[in-house]
Amino acid sequence: MPKPSDHGDVTMKIHSVLAAIAATLLAAAAVPSRAAAPASKSAPTMQQVLDASRPSDWRPLNPDDTLYMDLPEGRVVIELASAYAPLHAENIRTLAHQHYWDALAILRVQDGFVTQWGDPAAEAEHPAHPPRSLGKAKSTIVAEFERNVAPGVPFTRLPDGDVYAPEVGFSNGFPVARDSKTGKTWLVHCYGMVGAGRDNTPDSGPGTELYAVIGQAPRQLDRNIALIGRVVQGMQYLSDLPRGNGPMGFYKNPAHQTKILRVRLASELPPAERMHLEVLRTDTPTFTALVESRRNRSDAWYLYKVGKIDICNVPLPVRETP
Amino acid sequence: MPKPSDHGDVTMKIHSVLAAIAATLLAAAAVPSRAAAPASKSAPTMQQVLDASRPSDWRPLNPDDTLYMDLPEGRVVIELASAYAPLHAENIRTLAHQHYWDALAILRVQDGFVTQWGDPAAEAEHPAHPPRSLGKAKSTIVAEFERNVAPGVPFTRLPDGDVYAPEVGFSNGFPVARDSKTGKTWLVHCYGMVGAGRDNTPDSGPGTELYAVIGQAPRQLDRNIALIGRVVQGMQYLSDLPRGNGPMGFYKNPAHQTKILRVRLASELPPAERMHLEVLRTDTPTFTALVESRRNRSDAWYLYKVGKIDICNVPLPVRETP
Repeated sequence: MPKPSDHGDVTMKIHSVLAAIAATLLAAAAVPSRAAAPASKSAPTMQQVLDASRPSDWRPLNPDDTLYMDLPEGRVVIELASAYAPLHAENIRTLAHQHYWDALAILRVQDGFVTQWGDPAAEAEHPAHPPRSLGKAKSTIVAEFERNVAPGVPFTRLPDGDVYAPEVGFSNGFPVARDSKTGKTWLVHCYGMVGAGRDNTPDSGPGTELYAVIGQAPRQLDRNIALIGRVVQGMQYLSDLPRGNGPMGFYKNPAHQTKILRVRLASELPPAERMHLEVLRTDTPTFTALVESRRNRSDAWYLYKVGKIDICNVPLPVRETP
Repeated sequence: MPKPSDHGDVTMKIHSVLAAIAATLLAAAAVPSRAAAPASKSAPTMQQVLDASRPSDWRPLNPDDTLYMDLPEGRVVIELASAYAPLHAENIRTLAHQHYWDALAILRVQDGFVTQWGDPAAEAEHPAHPPRSLGKAKSTIVAEFERNVAPGVPFTRLPDGDVYAPEVGFSNGFPVARDSKTGKTWLVHCYGMVGAGRDNTPDSGPGTELYAVIGQAPRQLDRNIALIGRVVQGMQYLSDLPRGNGPMGFYKNPAHQTKILRVRLASELPPAERMHLEVLRTDTPTFTALVESRRNRSDAWYLYKVGKIDICNVPLPVRETP
């Protein structure tokens, strides 16, 4: 019986899936641990591309760029994009070292848009108690909405085009856009990207209040706000939360907010307590083959191959270090 | 203090939002009931466009094309796209009349992809009990993945371009694409769109098992499967469910499935029990102005106007009939 042969984002009816479970014990993780049978002899599926990858196709997460946010239901792992928002990343490290977010809360879940977290008392008009001190962290940071294209910043171009930007592609595992006319490049708002909420002034988002994209890529935010990284594991703990019932998805009743247990920088923890995750490098032939396997699906389920892929539909695989 | 002036998909920090609540009592519904102050004197915000709309800019939902799916947490309202998938819509009406989905379940929630529902026993290899009878409904339906462009099918072109299709736009409130070379047009997989799960053969999706898009538009599914409508209200009851822990987001343990209380066609119910919802027409100058208000935001929060919009980022407003 035919079965899904890679990430499984087809909409099969259940019997095929049950057959798949029985036949292959496919893992539910972002990168299933076993290959499924090829659906055709032609192009490889994404799973086949991943199975054929070499250790050098993967890059371990840098513990200084890795945040663990523990929520009641599970852990969210965020990789900071230090090359694109270095000042924000540094301020976020400072906040994490101070355990700034411990016992703070998810403040906002707006359906199809973002989940946002921070200090409920921060800047409220009539807070019940004073907001948490920022300690040594900065309360304003100059806008890091885009940066200069430079030799040290890798760029793997995606040739499929884009509605919003002249060029899009990948840089060290992050989805980015660039404009050769201005010489600027910037991170783009795909599902799972994390940014620093701000008020109307460009420097008002120091990273104390962060958001993750949980819906259709809100690309209108590109270059309007600093993206600071992306969720590499545990996205579901941010996306399955009850939607806020107030304006913009904020919770009217603070009792509905989800508590943050703690946020730690991986490098703060003893090595034995760190997770060992690695992400697929985006500057390799393996990644190019992975994109092609998603642009033109070879699974038997697909009757029509569209031949194109949007930057925000390209998977960025993560796995535990073998 | 500046505040969000329309749907509010900006990522402001909380104090501005609390000010907005206090100052304007903005409603949290898809269409806030009051106008917020304009952020600039130039282009109108989406809220201002909606406030200036006339009754003729709106189209009431046809009770024969409207499904109410009641879940434990609330009601999901789906509009059937009878012009694009007439055979599927008819089969779904037949199934609804027979109360086919009552006490069936949400079978699958795959993060960033789809929520899918139907009969847990249907087509399972070793079901605990026989699947529910389809009664007078068909078990196979010819593929309705695209249809011919025809004079009776409205099309409001979106001039912003698209990665996946030669042309995109709107047809009677639904996002669509078309190809003048083939003379075909089809519904596209935006957030909230609903389709009929199928197996590997094109006719194997009769509408018994349906799915809704809960993540980044999976446009690779376009023309590979029949979209049959869209969620016009209650999307959060499909998107905030716990993600399934099995392959492709299916629940390994049936006890984790969410029960469907009932599904009814609005026209089945006595008029007093029907909801009175209307959707903004997509073939009017008001809709064109709404798209422009989202393409170039005039809210003070936006520092950079991108000047483009993706088809799946265009809101399709719904309101209770005034």
